[in-house]
Amino acid sequence: MNIGIIGLGLMGGSLGLALKKINTKYHVIGYDHNQKHRQEALELNLVDEIYDTLDKMKKCAIIVLTIPVDAIITTIYKLQDISKDCTIIDFGSSKSKISSSIPTEMRELVVTAHPMTGTEKFGPNAAIDNLYKDKVMVVCDIEKSGELQRNRAITLFKDIDAKVIFMEANEHDRHASFISHMPHAVSFAIANSVIKQEDAENIVALAGGGFKSMSRIAKSSPNMWEDIFRQNRDNLLESIDSFNREMMLCRKMIESEDWRALHKWMLEANSLHDIL
Amino acid sequence: MNIGIIGLGLMGGSLGLALKKINTKYHVIGYDHNQKHRQEALELNLVDEIYDTLDKMKKCAIIVLTIPVDAIITTIYKLQDISKDCTIIDFGSSKSKISSSIPTEMRELVVTAHPMTGTEKFGPNAAIDNLYKDKVMVVCDIEKSGELQRNRAITLFKDIDAKVIFMEANEHDRHASFISHMPHAVSFAIANSVIKQEDAENIVALAGGGFKSMSRIAKSSPNMWEDIFRQNRDNLLESIDSFNREMMLCRKMIESEDWRALHKWMLEANSLHDIL
Repeated sequence: MNIGIIGLGLMGGSLGLALKKINTKYHVIGYDHNQKHRQEALELNLVDEIYDTLDKMKKCAIIVLTIPVDAIITTIYKLQDISKDCTIIDFGSSKSKISSSIPTEMRELVVTAHPMTGTEKFGPNAAIDNLYKDKVMVVCDIEKSGELQRNRAITLFKDIDAKVIFMEANEHDRHASFISHMPHAVSFAIANSVIKQEDAENIVALAGGGFKSMSRIAKSSPNMWEDIFRQNRDNLLESIDSFNREMMLCRKMIESEDWRALHKWMLEANSLHDIL
Repeated sequence: MNIGIIGLGLMGGSLGLALKKINTKYHVIGYDHNQKHRQEALELNLVDEIYDTLDKMKKCAIIVLTIPVDAIITTIYKLQDISKDCTIIDFGSSKSKISSSIPTEMRELVVTAHPMTGTEKFGPNAAIDNLYKDKVMVVCDIEKSGELQRNRAITLFKDIDAKVIFMEANEHDRHASFISHMPHAVSFAIANSVIKQEDAENIVALAGGGFKSMSRIAKSSPNMWEDIFRQNRDNLLESIDSFNREMMLCRKMIESEDWRALHKWMLEANSLHDIL
């Protein structure tokens, strides 16, 4: 079966590697609007073949969109004349806006999903063959997808060893704002607060594992994250407010030297790891 | 040479393992006020021998204090009658209060240092033999230590392959608040903001690598961190304020939909990794 991957960065490239690893079930065709990425993807063996226009990709039985979330919406529009047997899958990190933007007449063709995996790296070079293995794949508003499309998508997700979870797009976006979008905003803020210090280089020279963990995702692509923050703005503001309340509470306990309350608050935070 | 390690958790246990690995230069003696930890340290082979009272430890040529920062101060007081040839080293994460709390008549005996390494785990079981390898060891106010003590400490740090950096305690505490103490406060706040959501378990079920990185150090010991936050309160408040300003700026750009400015702000955050 021909499967087309549009967007040959970390997510798309890793999908190509995972599909090429399993067997010969899928013939993997890649497309990226960036000519250099197309070339690299071929050299890195992320795909079996490269097409050089979006139009040619329309022949694939499955098309996976692994591009920034705003581009997902514009690309789905460009695929409006596609065959009704086609399955379009998107891997965007925000889901409501995408799910509701798909033209009604092609809504059945699309399965909108979000793999809960990634690294701070991007581009074809960032691709790794086990990115999806044992990771959660959230599939949203599945009742809006056609039966053929559901089956093809779920089979594909199982083929790459992802754990499939179903959820409404709204619910996904609220959850994702807490476990992914707000933490990214926080990591960018930590990085900027340190960079703006007069002696930033001396400070960073001391960085241990804690700081490296907390600033790692501040390496992430602004192109990708601007779109996600825009699409999930309302939930993101809510999760940032929730975080800020905790941060203000923490600050207040330190300022007023209420160490007993601070200790209790840290113990509560420890309990996250009973459910994680 | 007999070296005594007081506190057989992650830091002390890992020091024991590192010293036992190199050669027979050091005979490693452990002490912990927790009897269970003493037993575990022996079973895990973190030390050559265990002493069961603090008094017996006074015979060691070098004593390393790998205990919470408030306990470091009280323990140094208990060691006041120690021989003038002894070298006491502490590994506390905040340095000014410790450096200035040492009784004048024994100030020369003490070398106050902070290894910029660690994990979120604690207790003897958390010990690993390469915790200090190639990591920065900040040595503070070294001019206040005697020549014998300086030499013994620096030699010890080189023996465990740490990279020694010298700094004033005040400067260390300001830097440490930005790269370690504030990020810990932030991680605790992220954990608490998620835990307090009605559907915390469903949210956490989706956690990918980003959330795991950002919440990892929220597993850290409240016993240890309460003391650090108390001792480094003023710097910590300053670094939290610096972080909060960035977070508020981020929130404002998202609320007012100033995506251009947000994009630029994220690009600036990316640049941290040019110096990290």
